[in-house]
Amino acid sequence: MPSFIPPTRTLMGPGPSDVSPRVLEALARPTIGHLDPEFQRLMDEIKDLLRYAFKTKNTLTFPVSAPGSAGMETCFTNLVEPGDKVIVCVNGVFGTRMVENVIRCGATAIIVNDQWGTPVCLDKTEAELKANPDAKILAFVAAETSTGVACDTKSLCALAQKYNCLTIVDAVTSLGGSELEVDAWNIDAVYSGSQKCLSCPPGLSPVSFNDRAIEKIKSRKTPVQSWFMDLNLVMGYWDGTGGRSYHHTAPVNAMYALHESLLILKEEGLENAWARHIEMSKRLRIGFEAMGIEYLVEEKYRLPQLNTIIIPQHIVDEAAIRAKLLNEHNLEIGAGLGSLAGKVWRVGLMGHSARQENVDKCLAAFKAVMN
Amino acid sequence: MPSFIPPTRTLMGPGPSDVSPRVLEALARPTIGHLDPEFQRLMDEIKDLLRYAFKTKNTLTFPVSAPGSAGMETCFTNLVEPGDKVIVCVNGVFGTRMVENVIRCGATAIIVNDQWGTPVCLDKTEAELKANPDAKILAFVAAETSTGVACDTKSLCALAQKYNCLTIVDAVTSLGGSELEVDAWNIDAVYSGSQKCLSCPPGLSPVSFNDRAIEKIKSRKTPVQSWFMDLNLVMGYWDGTGGRSYHHTAPVNAMYALHESLLILKEEGLENAWARHIEMSKRLRIGFEAMGIEYLVEEKYRLPQLNTIIIPQHIVDEAAIRAKLLNEHNLEIGAGLGSLAGKVWRVGLMGHSARQENVDKCLAAFKAVMN
Repeated sequence: MPSFIPPTRTLMGPGPSDVSPRVLEALARPTIGHLDPEFQRLMDEIKDLLRYAFKTKNTLTFPVSAPGSAGMETCFTNLVEPGDKVIVCVNGVFGTRMVENVIRCGATAIIVNDQWGTPVCLDKTEAELKANPDAKILAFVAAETSTGVACDTKSLCALAQKYNCLTIVDAVTSLGGSELEVDAWNIDAVYSGSQKCLSCPPGLSPVSFNDRAIEKIKSRKTPVQSWFMDLNLVMGYWDGTGGRSYHHTAPVNAMYALHESLLILKEEGLENAWARHIEMSKRLRIGFEAMGIEYLVEEKYRLPQLNTIIIPQHIVDEAAIRAKLLNEHNLEIGAGLGSLAGKVWRVGLMGHSARQENVDKCLAAFKAVMN
Repeated sequence: MPSFIPPTRTLMGPGPSDVSPRVLEALARPTIGHLDPEFQRLMDEIKDLLRYAFKTKNTLTFPVSAPGSAGMETCFTNLVEPGDKVIVCVNGVFGTRMVENVIRCGATAIIVNDQWGTPVCLDKTEAELKANPDAKILAFVAAETSTGVACDTKSLCALAQKYNCLTIVDAVTSLGGSELEVDAWNIDAVYSGSQKCLSCPPGLSPVSFNDRAIEKIKSRKTPVQSWFMDLNLVMGYWDGTGGRSYHHTAPVNAMYALHESLLILKEEGLENAWARHIEMSKRLRIGFEAMGIEYLVEEKYRLPQLNTIIIPQHIVDEAAIRAKLLNEHNLEIGAGLGSLAGKVWRVGLMGHSARQENVDKCLAAFKAVMN
């Protein structure tokens, strides 16, 4: 059996995105121990860089040693106790997954349903908050990767505060790609992924928790059901003062890559990165519209980093088009998920993929395969 | 802030071990999508290679997308239901962690305690199996990373079968380093780690489940409490026939590295790798004994890949010696854990670290710092 030599793709799906050569180079640096003082210095720098990216001063800010779905579960399994009531806004796949998490914590999910492709409705959410004064948490997805919709995160957090709820916010696709202000918006717990707008290989899930969230975790009546995700233990490793205590073995090389990708983000400047994503999505939209392609999401709710387009009616076999893009142009785009399967394509412009070169390549490839 | 350039260490602690340049090179290959047909081909090859390393024909053999402690939790959270009785053999840190897992699953742990540094006692284990006919699972650590002790895994599995229990076996430090026969020994569920004798960067946990274990998972009365680790869902991604269903985003580059490290193991031959670990540990022992250094574990129970030595009485500050090894010789060894802290050092000879060059360097460094 030979070594695995991957093809060189242009990654414009819902993630992973293109990883820059600088990050790949960092990934391959020699492995050191996870308790090495030099690694602990790296951990401190990563925490600082993540605070910059999340716009937060939260002490408990670090990458979970597993993909974004484990970051989601880390938030729910630590903040939700059996018997709790959690209001979950569902307008796509990842809201649905949040409900699954709530149920598996032995809690009750009150669901605010909105049509896929539309944002979470503030009025409906407030009505449920009002109707459920015993609800402890409001959970929602800031940037729905399954639909390309941006939520009004700031207003939803303000509502949660008004009704005395903590917030759990899915920012998997937001971080580094579009506006996200953890402290200014009073987000209590937030999780993201390495492989979206940070353009790191998949496998890590940056998270951040403020003092209100930590207080809730520390005052739990029942133990966290997951040992691996229990923040009471993980904190001793990531936040230990006077020597860190061993919890699990951190994915050392993945941390090198995350550090480098966060450095790249800081060098560009967070707000500049947001602006670049908007600019590139405009360029893409002009191209798609010239081809008569329409968007699923109303313009004001669109995420620049994830462009969901409606598959034109004359396309009979959409999977064949995606296969052609992949096989003939080495271009990966995303299929529709759930109720949108077969109806939309998702074109990502995330992090290092949000470049003029990629946009132009994508448009040219679409033109070639659609004719 | 500059890029992070790690020092070049020689890793002879309890893991991570030295990663070969071939594996680091594989790690840095361009990222592709986790649903790319080429990635699915890679997944199939990894499953085949892991079956070779585990000596099993188990279909459900794959790497969990998180470190070894998540592999442990994947076994417990899937196989243990609330109210179950689980017999856990504890002779070190990782047996203790198994007990934690059992409790967090809402089950009862019956503990068979043995002194740290000694193997699990077969008679005591059989007595508990006999006394608890309602016990459903026997769990133990094949190779205790905290003490360097090898268990009689084959006999423990035979006992479990005799008393109608499934087995969960921790093979984190075993896999690729010392004898392990998943099928021949009738192990029902087993987990390992990428960063020990496979000499891959940390972050993945190879697991394998036989049909008896899968039957138990499929016939659960309660849902698995973890969404991320629920094998009913993960199976759809790793074992999907006719198109895999999306579960989480696999750590693509880490999989490149695992594939390459498994290829290296297969090229050498599993039994040859086991023999090399024995040979290198002999060379190390001769050197240590010449320096008057004694071992914690009785010779017949010693793991070749993890050599636990007693800190000589004249050493007042053992941490200072480890710091000297690290700072002056770039050599990492492991401290004692738990009740062995301050009493022993753990010298790993795992995978790519089990080389003559490393043994000689280690002995020379010890001589230099101990004088």
